[in-house]
Amino acid sequence: MDFTLSEDQISLMSALEKTLARFGDDYWAECDITGSYPDAFVTAMAEGGWLGIALPSDVGGSGLGVTEAAMMMQAVAARGGMTAASSIHMNIFGPKSLFVFGTAEQRQRWLPDIIAGKTRMCFAVTEPDTGLDTTRLKTRAVRDDDRYIVNGQKVFISTAQSADKIMLIARTSDRDDANPAAGLSLFFTDFDRSRIEVREIEKMGRRAVDTNQLFIDDLEIPVEDLVGEEGKGFKCLLHSLNPERILIAAEAIGIGKDALRRATEYARERVVFERPIGQNQAIQHPLADGWARLAAARLMMLNAASLYDVGQSCGVEANAAKYLAADVGQDICRQAVATHGGMGYAREFHVERLFREIMIPYLAPVSQQLVLCYIAEQALGLPKSY
Amino acid sequence: MDFTLSEDQISLMSALEKTLARFGDDYWAECDITGSYPDAFVTAMAEGGWLGIALPSDVGGSGLGVTEAAMMMQAVAARGGMTAASSIHMNIFGPKSLFVFGTAEQRQRWLPDIIAGKTRMCFAVTEPDTGLDTTRLKTRAVRDDDRYIVNGQKVFISTAQSADKIMLIARTSDRDDANPAAGLSLFFTDFDRSRIEVREIEKMGRRAVDTNQLFIDDLEIPVEDLVGEEGKGFKCLLHSLNPERILIAAEAIGIGKDALRRATEYARERVVFERPIGQNQAIQHPLADGWARLAAARLMMLNAASLYDVGQSCGVEANAAKYLAADVGQDICRQAVATHGGMGYAREFHVERLFREIMIPYLAPVSQQLVLCYIAEQALGLPKSY
Amino acid sequence: MDFTLSEDQISLMSALEKTLARFGDDYWAECDITGSYPDAFVTAMAEGGWLGIALPSDVGGSGLGVTEAAMMMQAVAARGGMTAASSIHMNIFGPKSLFVFGTAEQRQRWLPDIIAGKTRMCFAVTEPDTGLDTTRLKTRAVRDDDRYIVNGQKVFISTAQSADKIMLIARTSDRDDANPAAGLSLFFTDFDRSRIEVREIEKMGRRAVDTNQLFIDDLEIPVEDLVGEEGKGFKCLLHSLNPERILIAAEAIGIGKDALRRATEYARERVVFERPIGQNQAIQHPLADGWARLAAARLMMLNAASLYDVGQSCGVEANAAKYLAADVGQDICRQAVATHGGMGYAREFHVERLFREIMIPYLAPVSQQLVLCYIAEQALGLPKSY
Amino acid sequence: MDFTLSEDQISLMSALEKTLARFGDDYWAECDITGSYPDAFVTAMAEGGWLGIALPSDVGGSGLGVTEAAMMMQAVAARGGMTAASSIHMNIFGPKSLFVFGTAEQRQRWLPDIIAGKTRMCFAVTEPDTGLDTTRLKTRAVRDDDRYIVNGQKVFISTAQSADKIMLIARTSDRDDANPAAGLSLFFTDFDRSRIEVREIEKMGRRAVDTNQLFIDDLEIPVEDLVGEEGKGFKCLLHSLNPERILIAAEAIGIGKDALRRATEYARERVVFERPIGQNQAIQHPLADGWARLAAARLMMLNAASLYDVGQSCGVEANAAKYLAADVGQDICRQAVATHGGMGYAREFHVERLFREIMIPYLAPVSQQLVLCYIAEQALGLPKSY
Repeated sequence: MDFTLSEDQISLMSALEKTLARFGDDYWAECDITGSYPDAFVTAMAEGGWLGIALPSDVGGSGLGVTEAAMMMQAVAARGGMTAASSIHMNIFGPKSLFVFGTAEQRQRWLPDIIAGKTRMCFAVTEPDTGLDTTRLKTRAVRDDDRYIVNGQKVFISTAQSADKIMLIARTSDRDDANPAAGLSLFFTDFDRSRIEVREIEKMGRRAVDTNQLFIDDLEIPVEDLVGEEGKGFKCLLHSLNPERILIAAEAIGIGKDALRRATEYARERVVFERPIGQNQAIQHPLADGWARLAAARLMMLNAASLYDVGQSCGVEANAAKYLAADVGQDICRQAVATHGGMGYAREFHVERLFREIMIPYLAPVSQQLVLCYIAEQALGLPKSY
Repeated sequence: MDFTLSEDQISLMSALEKTLARFGDDYWAECDITGSYPDAFVTAMAEGGWLGIALPSDVGGSGLGVTEAAMMMQAVAARGGMTAASSIHMNIFGPKSLFVFGTAEQRQRWLPDIIAGKTRMCFAVTEPDTGLDTTRLKTRAVRDDDRYIVNGQKVFISTAQSADKIMLIARTSDRDDANPAAGLSLFFTDFDRSRIEVREIEKMGRRAVDTNQLFIDDLEIPVEDLVGEEGKGFKCLLHSLNPERILIAAEAIGIGKDALRRATEYARERVVFERPIGQNQAIQHPLADGWARLAAARLMMLNAASLYDVGQSCGVEANAAKYLAADVGQDICRQAVATHGGMGYAREFHVERLFREIMIPYLAPVSQQLVLCYIAEQALGLPKSY
Repeated sequence: MDFTLSEDQISLMSALEKTLARFGDDYWAECDITGSYPDAFVTAMAEGGWLGIALPSDVGGSGLGVTEAAMMMQAVAARGGMTAASSIHMNIFGPKSLFVFGTAEQRQRWLPDIIAGKTRMCFAVTEPDTGLDTTRLKTRAVRDDDRYIVNGQKVFISTAQSADKIMLIARTSDRDDANPAAGLSLFFTDFDRSRIEVREIEKMGRRAVDTNQLFIDDLEIPVEDLVGEEGKGFKCLLHSLNPERILIAAEAIGIGKDALRRATEYARERVVFERPIGQNQAIQHPLADGWARLAAARLMMLNAASLYDVGQSCGVEANAAKYLAADVGQDICRQAVATHGGMGYAREFHVERLFREIMIPYLAPVSQQLVLCYIAEQALGLPKSY
Repeated sequence: MDFTLSEDQISLMSALEKTLARFGDDYWAECDITGSYPDAFVTAMAEGGWLGIALPSDVGGSGLGVTEAAMMMQAVAARGGMTAASSIHMNIFGPKSLFVFGTAEQRQRWLPDIIAGKTRMCFAVTEPDTGLDTTRLKTRAVRDDDRYIVNGQKVFISTAQSADKIMLIARTSDRDDANPAAGLSLFFTDFDRSRIEVREIEKMGRRAVDTNQLFIDDLEIPVEDLVGEEGKGFKCLLHSLNPERILIAAEAIGIGKDALRRATEYARERVVFERPIGQNQAIQHPLADGWARLAAARLMMLNAASLYDVGQSCGVEANAAKYLAADVGQDICRQAVATHGGMGYAREFHVERLFREIMIPYLAPVSQQLVLCYIAEQALGLPKSY
């Protein structure tokens, strides 16, 4: 057993900090207030080669694992919250399916531009009325000669305002109860705004990275943009579920650590009744509890990443990491607000922004409740409850 | 013992609902998004006579107690959250000191206009570096013939953008450690914008009702605007602390009930995996827990109000009510967001607004931690911890 | 609204305290260690007339309500925990059905002796495999001329070691899915040990008041011991469900208050690092939180009792009171142990006894989870989850 | 980073399970009920060589680290709770100081017999009035020729009823505020019952392993039983603090896992309302939460052990591990009781025993609150609060 970072990992994180340090609190607060996309940040990350961290070197990536990608996303979120994380999140874990299931030609056609930040992609899975049961989605792709014609709706699609590519899952044949996952197909194609109407969902936080409802009307997709085999798209999708949970856990931990740092500094410096407020156990104990739980959630997250990278199953570990990370993240962000007293409510202290943003990993990509269902079934062998 | 509302109280609430029903979700969401003050609402409440609910009839009030005022504020917050509540909160509990300690002339000069909504007042106590120890405030009022000249700073002052009167506490003589509360004086005077600079504090929620920092520079207050005796302002202030906590508790309960209602309705109607999500214990049990705790917090709040109205001491009860109400309010608002899943994060479902607004009674006018200190000392006889 | 006790209620409680004061900590600890029934206490309560507090005066009771009975049980539990409470609990709420549904002859035959403490009764409803669905119980009573012959099993039956009467519910006709509650009958009869085998269940706490499994083998019950109509026993049972929850809530509150008192006293007196440990917020804040939640749970409990006494429905209130009381009771008992440090684990400080005993209202007569189901369905209109 | 067990570690645990499997639930329940020391178990562990797991091979130990010792103690506690763990706990971590600070002669004189289980030792540090500040202890050892004469009191001393050796810390010179830790000396000597009166403290759980108060009256200790230098005993003591916390964390995790296993099995098998109760989210979700938190606490514990074994500082990690392990352990034991419903209160289902025993790591060797103080100061740089 060895819980320490390798020297390479330490250098990597140190190099990353240099890029991150260029974007301070004011930058992220400005993005949040104006709702403007963090273009400069994404460009800097692309230039630094960070977007290809987990993609192989033959397409221009760094060839590292989900472990390093997760460490990177933790550091990114610790600086710029979910605004920073979500602006590149999809570019980190999304292309994985393209690499694993795409043809050699597709990989070369798509991945270098993604890594270079020239292509911005969005990921369109969720639909308004299918809940989490992806097999029930209704968007249809009908083959017509050398293209597919797609119609349907998608919801909670991030970065669709500015994406030029869309990764899309749709039904290419009717649902069969005996094998409900069959008949779904995965596409990666141009985001044709003449055929996809994008309506932004106004939301509580992370305004700079848009979330949208998509109305797809006769979108044409050339057959060469089908990823993997027709009808086997669900398998491609599944491949990226655990990395997604691991990254989101890392992001929640990053935000939690940032909130903890801010609260601790304020508690050390703010003097009330002639002593720093951090001398009060009511102030310091919740922060200490947060420290311990964040440290434990981080180990869970790294454990899941580590299992994934050596090809072992990591479903319960990845889900548990997201659960624990979001749970302590939410608590510590609220506590950071409370530590600042009335000033915690003011935008200028940034913790209110984290308090709003931490709700994203709390709610998505799967609810805390569904994680518990998953653990109960998979780790404890208890019956399905719904 | 009798826990039921009187017939008069039932009629009162029923009449109030008619006024409140004129301002729907869209109205409050619009206020929140644009940050515009809820003028129409305040006017309607003034026209209905509601602003004078707890003031005596000889100055145009309804002559009712804090009990009825608290019931009213619960109902107001259950419709329009803290945006609605804070827009009139000060007008409900602030003038109490004017009535109790003001001269007959002052009462007639000031109170009818407040009740009629013609006067909008703000309440300026808190200062940047005094923490909660009001006796340490530094704003000075120096007597100069028939007026006082005031200099200093105030922070967290609500509605100062539009107020035309300011209730202000300032030192009129030096602090004496032997009797630190002496030497503070209370004033109620015109809000002279040529002498008071107002800087708004941008904040997480309740944007429509401004919170501000005040920089007071040679403000002149005529002696006839001194309330009570010079040097005895602290006593006037204390008089309103418990009503303030009772009202804020009522407001937290109102928001909690509204969040619970919205979550429950969504849980009944939203179908996932072919059944309403409210059939899941993971969804319904936190709501049921919220129901029970809200009901208990409401009884605590009414108990405190009831003690206040018969002139008994109600400090621990009022503080405990604020603590319990804010605690369950915060939990149930987060749960309401979680119940809506990703949609909980969208502005259009309103629960995210409540989630941001409930943090106000959680943080103010006193932190949850200081309430626990107060209860520990006053109810349990434990030593002061700070 | 009026939250204060009447003068009569105050005198009553004051008289009760005189009886209770005769049985100190040593008495209850001794009962717990030796497992011997608190005979002297029960006798003293009977002599004081307390067993008939909620029964009408024409059978020798005091004619008071569930409100007063609950106040009494809170005070009893605050002195002697569940050992004291359970030794008389059944005598307080059990005979209610006898009074309401019994004939005039039965009332006179049974109730005076119960009130006088001459009759000790146990209450046999629960069966090993029916869970909480009483309509599924399997114990059969077959009419044979002027008697019923009963066979079956019961579980969790308190005081069966020493009871001389048993209140028993059994099927007198087959279960009909269309009307599952029909066909159950209630009996009150001699505890015939030649036909009922009693096996004690060894348990974590409250050893002095036995809990048992009953094996009933051809028990003969004369027809005159049938209570109410044959086949309508479920209705009789239902009548006592809410009072039972109210009393158990009162008992949990009594234990909670006792644990809080002990912890507070220890925190005031125990000096570590040269100051009372109660000066630490980590010690005092959980106790203050307990104070507030106990006060709120008490109001909920009294509210439910008050509704019951005026004949209004009180199901959700009674269940919510048991839920809140058991919840805070459990927390405060654990906190009382923690406040005592290592000494909390020692028997001589009594808090470990309360920590074991509070689990009874936490687990029974209905689990916290089933209370939440009940509230979700009845108060929130959410669908049944199981 | 590598979170997996080595093959050697896997074999070790597998061998251990064979020994542990010989002592089933009945054995541990019997120990608990009768209060008789688990002699057969301790003998079996000694025969298997397990007592020397963390001692070097030249004195007969296995030469493994705290990591393996902690894995062992987790497995031991998962079978026999704190009864099993405490019966050997001291023999595992106590001799460490003897090995590190003892002379070659002392090591050979003492350690082989400890490893062989021939010597049973107790560890006497804590005193009634010194709290956790060991430097304030009052027991005095006065040098008199070739021996020390010791007088004083100790409290919370486990296994003193049957120990034949005592590891004792006492003052050999007056306390100096400038260097309060100086002047304490460590001894390892015969337990002379003619000079040490042992009074057992009756307690809530783990009755089979006694806890005692010691009254030491002119105990004579030969100088050759002094460990390390006179006056430098505190340093010896400090050396074992972190291993102690790591082991206690491992034990809490073991109990937690056992409680979780029992609850899960019961939830799978117990059918109520015609389905296993584990199908209810109210039953399964708290268990799933327990699974996740136990897994995270285990990683924290192994991380601390791992740091210790490579000689790095591990204070915050060891303390955080004990905090998280005790916290989830306590929750999951209560939940295991609740999962069993009324049967959770019955001794025959064993979970009530675990519920009582888990309070030991919750309360000792340091309270949860003091752990938070430690983390706040050491990890967060916040000021001392007491």
